[in-house]
Formats: sequence, structure tokens, C-alpha cells
Amino acid sequence: MAGEFDLIDRYFGLRSAQRVNPLVPVGIGDDCAAVTLPPGAVLLTSVDTFSEGVHFFSDAPAFAIGHKSLAVNLSDLAACGAEPVACLLALSLPSVEDPWLADFSSGFTRLADLFSCPLIGGDTTSARRGGGITLSVTVLGQVPGVSSMLMRKNAQVGDDIWVSGDLGAAALSVAFQSDPTALPALDAATADLAKQRLEYPEPRIALGISLRHLARACIDVSDGLRSDLGHILKLSGNLGAQLQESAIPYASVLSSLPPALRQRFALYGGDDYELCFTAPVENEPQLRQIGHSLGVPLSKIGRITSGGGISLETLDGEQINLEGKAYEHFN
Amino acid sequence: MAGEFDLIDRYFGLRSAQRVNPLVPVGIGDDCAAVTLPPGAVLLTSVDTFSEGVHFFSDAPAFAIGHKSLAVNLSDLAACGAEPVACLLALSLPSVEDPWLADFSSGFTRLADLFSCPLIGGDTTSARRGGGITLSVTVLGQVPGVSSMLMRKNAQVGDDIWVSGDLGAAALSVAFQSDPTALPALDAATADLAKQRLEYPEPRIALGISLRHLARACIDVSDGLRSDLGHILKLSGNLGAQLQESAIPYASVLSSLPPALRQRFALYGGDDYELCFTAPVENEPQLRQIGHSLGVPLSKIGRITSGGGISLETLDGEQINLEGKAYEHFN
Repeated sequence: MAGEFDLIDRYFGLRSAQRVNPLVPVGIGDDCAAVTLPPGAVLLTSVDTFSEGVHFFSDAPAFAIGHKSLAVNLSDLAACGAEPVACLLALSLPSVEDPWLADFSSGFTRLADLFSCPLIGGDTTSARRGGGITLSVTVLGQVPGVSSMLMRKNAQVGDDIWVSGDLGAAALSVAFQSDPTALPALDAATADLAKQRLEYPEPRIALGISLRHLARACIDVSDGLRSDLGHILKLSGNLGAQLQESAIPYASVLSSLPPALRQRFALYGGDDYELCFTAPVENEPQLRQIGHSLGVPLSKIGRITSGGGISLETLDGEQINLEGKAYEHFN
Repeated sequence: MAGEFDLIDRYFGLRSAQRVNPLVPVGIGDDCAAVTLPPGAVLLTSVDTFSEGVHFFSDAPAFAIGHKSLAVNLSDLAACGAEPVACLLALSLPSVEDPWLADFSSGFTRLADLFSCPLIGGDTTSARRGGGITLSVTVLGQVPGVSSMLMRKNAQVGDDIWVSGDLGAAALSVAFQSDPTALPALDAATADLAKQRLEYPEPRIALGISLRHLARACIDVSDGLRSDLGHILKLSGNLGAQLQESAIPYASVLSSLPPALRQRFALYGGDDYELCFTAPVENEPQLRQIGHSLGVPLSKIGRITSGGGISLETLDGEQINLEGKAYEHFN
């Protein structure tokens, strides 16, 4: 469709013209954009939707929504070890508000620039009044060959389980913004820090690329560690996992919470966009070196077992089985 | 995001497993899907959004919505001369209704199968209640090289202007469904036929591929001939066009309408998804042969001029200038 061309052009056109990815000979403005890949390279792609009131709060800043809508997609590329190439945006709005669109496009293009991932296709349409903002981003990335692609299904019994960064800050912010009274009082600085983590996830692109031939299975933690590690286990042939609570990297903003809440946010909470991956035991020294050189904390949190679900050895030395509950849409 | 995986899997998983495109080594089910292209090939991509109450009537059949949401994207590939490779779907629903989803996925996958364009990425999310259904489709296609890509910007003075199929049936149906009393009475068969054309556009993939080295500029008629031809003219350096009304392929369902309405639907109405293209005069014999062998009517409707907007010589021999009005979102 050619229709909504002008709006995309107005807000993204000039900016995207300034950005360059040598793999994009034809950018936005025709019926299609064109992408070339180096010889032998494989294109990786993913799509995610973001809905107002479901995936972001209605009062979230437009700049942050622009950032996060691209960041969560880049995170999918990171989880597969891919390098970003370009992205496409579909934006459905109940009404056009210039300041909102200007801020949204600033947040979006700032991140796109950082990762050399120009916007090469866009469609902005009006939504029925009464509905909220809905936006979908499709990302394109590349790996040098299919064997370089990190996948969920390749975990093996005995692999170490690793996670990057720390967990639980985003879920704390969701819970706090949804119902502040349901939580122990948070000081303002902690609440702000948690909100920052919810709104500005950092896609782990460099880490994903570094893991290409070191990790066996990889996923990004979007729905919560329990749930996403569960995908790895299921797709790798119904394997199990033994985790050590002492090794789980709890986000510092969780430190004032009672242990049960801390566990809930870090293990079941979503939106962290860290990478959870498995790797052969012998790769630990190289992994520690990569974490160090990238400045990304890597925590070895457990080991893949032949079955039995996900067990956690708690700080008290108790073994508990983590139930398969997590954030689900449509519940 | 891993979250909505199960819903996509339930409705599209089995079906897409049955479909094959040898260029897709990794389909739906991981953080990303993988696509390989033949050596030298260029990937073309486009995204379109579909909103309930804006792009389709709330009572449109789910099967038809599934068809059209992919068809309009395949039409963008057709306009660039591309062969379909794969597609991604983002679906945002106020509530999950199994029969709706089953019918939608049937319509979508039937067309995807027809064009060997498997679904390789999907995200189904809940929308805020009160809003409508929103869906975005991203298509991936390929051409053998950048020089094979048909673009809007390559029209030249003296080129013939061509259009495939016929025009105006979809716009008639939109007008009739929006306000039946505003039109002269239509018999039921005509109204049904027009609706069929609105709901089941046929992407002109084979034609687009055949035009690769015969057409100069090409676009699909999504917003109306006046508007889409206008894009070609503008991007080709502000050229003009001289059209002959006697050559415009009016859809047969328009035949009972007064001339002014017929003109309005065929020239300003959208949703036809025919191809409008320009070509050197000497390519006419080859073009006629292609139209004949594909069974696609091709009409030579005018000629590219050096400027002066779009003029139409009417059936009465009058010269009129077609104003730049057309269907616009947010008006």
C-alpha cells in the first residue's frame, strides 16, 4: 500500500536517509525495500507486537515506547546470535498527535542508529477510536551461515545454564505501577530505577554474536526465566534443569523485598531481555572472558539434567520444583 | 518474545509445517526464523497493517480477512517484480474466538500455500478491550538482482502507461457497504460481485515477475489509480501523464452507474491491487503476449508526459485535469 507513506516519511524519512547499512541498497519509499546479504549469509527475522495497556502503560513516554518496540525485536536477533540489518514498523494509532510521533520516532531511530538497523518499511494507519496504540516491528538480521544460528533446541544434558545481566527489575516495575499498594513501600529512587529497566531494555546483540560457537541453546528472557528456560528444555527433548538460587543474579532493586517476592519477580517476571543460554562445561573460561570484555555480567545458574522439570536449590538448601506458571497473554 | 507462541502454533503450526519453501531452513518456533537466498539474489520486503473498521468492515468474514491481509502484501512484491519467499504475521485481538481464528488462518494459509510463501514468524497478542482487530503482515520476496527490481521512480517521458485487470469494483463495494442509500440501487448479484472483488484481491505475482525487464516503473493500485500513478510521476522527477478514458478498464460492475460515479470509483477508488506500470513503446507486442499467456487483461491507458499533472481525455473528447484527491488515512 502506498497510502500512509507521507506520515512515515515525515517522521522517519530524513532520519533514515542519514543512516546507512551497506546491505540496504533500496530503503523506504517504494512498494518494497531491498536487502542484500554477504555470500553464504543467512537472513534471520522475527516480529513482535506491542499494545497499549497490555505491553506498555498508557502513560509510558513515547520515546521509551519507540526504544522498547525495537529493543525487544533486536533482543530476538541477539538470542539467535544475529547481527541487525534492518527493520520494518507498522503503527496503528487512534489519532495522530505530532509530539507523540516525534518522540516515538526519536526513541526508535536512536536505537536503530546505535545498531545500524535502518527502518526500511513502514505503515502508519488509523485505528478505530476507543482502541489503543498497536505497533509491530519486524527485524531482519544475519548470521554467516545456518550453523552460526543459536537456537532453543540444542541444549544437552550436562550443559551449564547461564544468564546475562540481572533479573526481576522490570517485573518489579510492572507490579508497582499496576498496584503500588500490593507491594512493600518502595523508595522513589528504587521505583524509578526499576521503571528505567522496564522501559529501556538493552538488546544483548554483542553478546549473542560472541556466543555463536560457544553456546548450545539460547533464548531471550521476555516472559520470565522459568518460562523461557522451559522453552529451551521442551524443544531440546524435554530435558530438565537444576538451578542454584545462590547463583541467580537478582536485580539490586529487589534487595529490600521479602525473599518470596524477590524470587517471583526474578524467576517468573518478564521483560528483562537478558539472554539465557546453555553451554558445554569446558567453555566456561571463554565465556567468563567474553563477559568481562563486553562488560556484561554472566552468571552460571545451574545445569541441564535429563528431565524432571526445573528444580531450584533455595538459599536454605531446600529443593523446590518451579511450577510452569508465568506471564501469559489472554489469561 | 516467546509468549504468544502457543496460539500461533495451534492455528498455523501444523499447516505451515506442511508447506515448503526450500529457501526457509528454519521456520516458526524459535526466536527467529532463517531464510537463505540463491547466490546474488536480493531480498525484497514490505509491511502493511490492517485495522478493523478502517481497512475492513467489522462483519467481513474471517477467511476473507486472512486472505486479504496477505494478498495486499503479496501485491507489493508483485509491484516490484519479486517472487514470494515467506511472511510474518502480527495479530492483535481484543479477545480470542476460536472459530474466527480458525477461519482467519484458513484464508491466510490457503493463499500462502498458493504462492509458496510460508508463515515463518508470528505474534498474537491481546489488544485493549474496546479496540478492534489489528494485524500487520510483513512479506519477504526475492529478485535475481537489484536491476531486476521494478521501482516507482523509473518512468520516462514517452513511456506507455498500462494497467492490469479492471478498476473500480472494490471501491464500489466500499461505498455501497458504507451507505447503500447514497448510490443508485444495485442489484444483489452486482453488489455481491463487487464485494467479492473487495474481499479477495488477487496479487499479480506472475505478471510482476514477467515485467522485470519490460516495464520501467511499476506500482500496485491500492489507493486509486490517480494517487498511485501520481507516486510514479512524482518519484520519476515530477513527470505528467495523458490518459484516455476510452482505454480505462472500468470494472463490469460499474456499468449501470452514471459516468461521474464510474469515473470516481475507477480513478480515485482504492483496493483494486492491479498493477499500474510504464514501459517503452516498443515493448507493446511483448506485453500483449504476456497478458495473453497469463490470462491477465492489460490495458494501455495513456502516456507519460514531461509534466502538467495527470490529464484525462474523456469519452466526450474533453480534457480534464485529475485533481490529486484520493483516499487518505487520517483525513
